[in-house]
Amino acid sequence: MLEQFNPEKLFVQYRDGMTPMQPVIPRRYTLTHSDETGDLFLTIGTEYAWDRVNTKMRDEVLGEWLMNGDCYLFCVYVYIGQGEFDQHVSAKRNEVFRRELPLALKAIRYGDRFLFNKYPNLDQANIIVSFTSAYPQFSKQENWGTFGSFSM
Amino acid sequence: MLEQFNPEKLFVQYRDGMTPMQPVIPRRYTLTHSDETGDLFLTIGTEYAWDRVNTKMRDEVLGEWLMNGDCYLFCVYVYIGQGEFDQHVSAKRNEVFRRELPLALKAIRYGDRFLFNKYPNLDQANIIVSFTSAYPQFSKQENWGTFGSFSM
Repeated sequence: MLEQFNPEKLFVQYRDGMTPMQPVIPRRYTLTHSDETGDLFLTIGTEYAWDRVNTKMRDEVLGEWLMNGDCYLFCVYVYIGQGEFDQHVSAKRNEVFRRELPLALKAIRYGDRFLFNKYPNLDQANIIVSFTSAYPQFSKQENWGTFGSFSM
Repeated sequence: MLEQFNPEKLFVQYRDGMTPMQPVIPRRYTLTHSDETGDLFLTIGTEYAWDRVNTKMRDEVLGEWLMNGDCYLFCVYVYIGQGEFDQHVSAKRNEVFRRELPLALKAIRYGDRFLFNKYPNLDQANIIVSFTSAYPQFSKQENWGTFGSFSM
């Protein structure tokens, strides 16, 4: 991925009848990229776009809106590994995801800006990131703040 | 490009403050693709996205909305050559553009569907294609019908 988020590198695809301004639920995000060109691809649909996921690299970032009482919550899922990567590789994957996650969140915020314009309260929703790993030290669920801080 | 248009291969980018539903004018389209992945990239902005154009291949399709009296007109520009390709290569480029143009028009129609949903009369606008070539036999301006026939 790029060090800095460049909106001119981000391309979006709406699937499954999803539109730029609705619905919020269900709304699932699949963010992938091309190492070769630096392009970022954000697919927004009712389901995750598994056809866009690189099954060897598993470097995608997934996200979805959920309700928590009366508040929206944005859940992010990153896949560190479930046994196919050793501890050293898992540590590296964990490090790369943590380094790139702010860029990924900016890309989601910017790529779906028409939704945020329509529902400004989404900028106040908490972002909960789940790191999936077979190693307990990398298997975490963390609050990464709100989209307001990832807005351009 | 692909033989058949596959919506799951099309990614869109709105630039320069352009939104899915406005404005119609100015609104310029730059359609490019990746031979490697088959992905199609549609950039929609106030200007053409020259940074996306492959300056060696020049296989992009450009388009813009214009007014003709009270009616909208969609103008398409394809670049066959201005002297850098010989007559044989120009003939081949002309053939490829003509073969792929229906797919390109479907991609533009589908990629910008939120605009067509808002302004249904755009489906009745004539599509005028300009083929730019140093060879008079390939230098043409043609009416390719309306977007209604390139709608999914």
